[in-house]
Amino acid sequence: MSDPRSVFFISDRTGITAETLGQSLLTQFALDCSPVSMPFTDSPEAVDAAIERIEAAGRRNQSRPIVFSTIIDAGLRNRLRRVNAVVLDFFDTFIGPLESELGMESSHTIGRSHGIADPGAYKLRIDAMNYALSADDGAAVRHYEQADVILVGVSRCGKTPTCIYMALQYGIYAANYPLTDDDLLSGRLPEVLRPYRQRVYALTIRPERLAQIRAERRANTRYASLRQCQYETVRAEGLFHQEKLPFSNTTTMSIEEIAAMIIQSRQLPRRLY
Amino acid sequence: MSDPRSVFFISDRTGITAETLGQSLLTQFALDCSPVSMPFTDSPEAVDAAIERIEAAGRRNQSRPIVFSTIIDAGLRNRLRRVNAVVLDFFDTFIGPLESELGMESSHTIGRSHGIADPGAYKLRIDAMNYALSADDGAAVRHYEQADVILVGVSRCGKTPTCIYMALQYGIYAANYPLTDDDLLSGRLPEVLRPYRQRVYALTIRPERLAQIRAERRANTRYASLRQCQYETVRAEGLFHQEKLPFSNTTTMSIEEIAAMIIQSRQLPRRLY
Repeated sequence: MSDPRSVFFISDRTGITAETLGQSLLTQFALDCSPVSMPFTDSPEAVDAAIERIEAAGRRNQSRPIVFSTIIDAGLRNRLRRVNAVVLDFFDTFIGPLESELGMESSHTIGRSHGIADPGAYKLRIDAMNYALSADDGAAVRHYEQADVILVGVSRCGKTPTCIYMALQYGIYAANYPLTDDDLLSGRLPEVLRPYRQRVYALTIRPERLAQIRAERRANTRYASLRQCQYETVRAEGLFHQEKLPFSNTTTMSIEEIAAMIIQSRQLPRRLY
Repeated sequence: MSDPRSVFFISDRTGITAETLGQSLLTQFALDCSPVSMPFTDSPEAVDAAIERIEAAGRRNQSRPIVFSTIIDAGLRNRLRRVNAVVLDFFDTFIGPLESELGMESSHTIGRSHGIADPGAYKLRIDAMNYALSADDGAAVRHYEQADVILVGVSRCGKTPTCIYMALQYGIYAANYPLTDDDLLSGRLPEVLRPYRQRVYALTIRPERLAQIRAERRANTRYASLRQCQYETVRAEGLFHQEKLPFSNTTTMSIEEIAAMIIQSRQLPRRLY
């Protein structure tokens, strides 16, 4: 391992872009650090306070701190440059090349990213999330008509978090249908889903992991027993094969990865905001 | 407006970093474009297919496409470089400076960002989301003990989406409490919240906007009437002032901005994954 390093994400808005960007880069290094986020650093005084804090951390660790910046205001960006630290400046680096390629000046306005830049797109994300919540766990079969995609699988295999993530990130209308005992016995796609077969995507999971997850909710029940989880996953996967449904095994996947697989498989819109 | 331009986000994993990064930059330009995401571009064949698609778009628009890349594999990155387009390569740009500053080589491994890089942190996010869902709309008062923060406000002012966002993005345990008629009449913080006063954050909203949102759910009801919305928001804000609760007006804020405000105000942990 290397020396301890302090890492900062600094922004004059929410800081989300700086965090996403910085985390992606940091995962490439075996660096043990707890980055500090400094959002809303949007005045000369705030920048000066940030500089002080960054340099204090550098003195403590006796190493130069690393700063990921997405400050958009040019004056504040210049001010930050005086800090005794390594500054990786996202806007400085890419805005210039984009301006010359596009033959236009950037607006240098803050607050459009992660704000309500496009009210229509923003409303869609919120509506999609409300849809995911109301169409959760088969509660609202009548809403399937509106669904971009319907996730099918046994209880606690990852349907709900994935639906909500797709709604929030991409404005996708995602419903979910938990397979019932009758469905597992029949081995066929439930009647209610047949009209929407092209929108169905199935999820499965390793029974050992499923038993673990279920036990956190209801320990020592038949529902959480390995045997029951084995039975359900085997029957569910049989159904998916029988019906030729596309499916993923979520055991070692994050919801971001599951969502990306589903979106690609079902050619769903990625409604970026 | 400029010429039509095609924009692509390309990645050998989920593409989320490329999208976040690219969108942030694009919001700085008055550019009318619908970016195309190309996730899982993780083989020479996939890169070649992407190049073909990008160049075809360039010929159609008679302008150079713009490509935001977060491809981590060095061989694939080199291969992409042959494309007739402007490539803004996130890893190429920042990994070099980081390697020399840290005195260590990057792992060049893909799949750690937006995957389950840290199983503990990932589980926390999912648990936090399940918590937000189960503690929604005051349904689970007994769970307030676990909350990092408790959002208080009138029905449909933005509590639920904000709670879920904070859970998903930062692993924050966020509960929510909708103010009842009795609470609004008394003008005091509800008894059940008093032990947790330091964790309460309040939301309000302009009555005109609230009436609009409520009308989408239940048009032509007293609940959705402007008069009722005015009454509730005035009483709620009176309560917030009386109890000296920190609060935000969500009318023109995105959930990302609301979340960032709350996190800063209540000094909540940003548990990045």
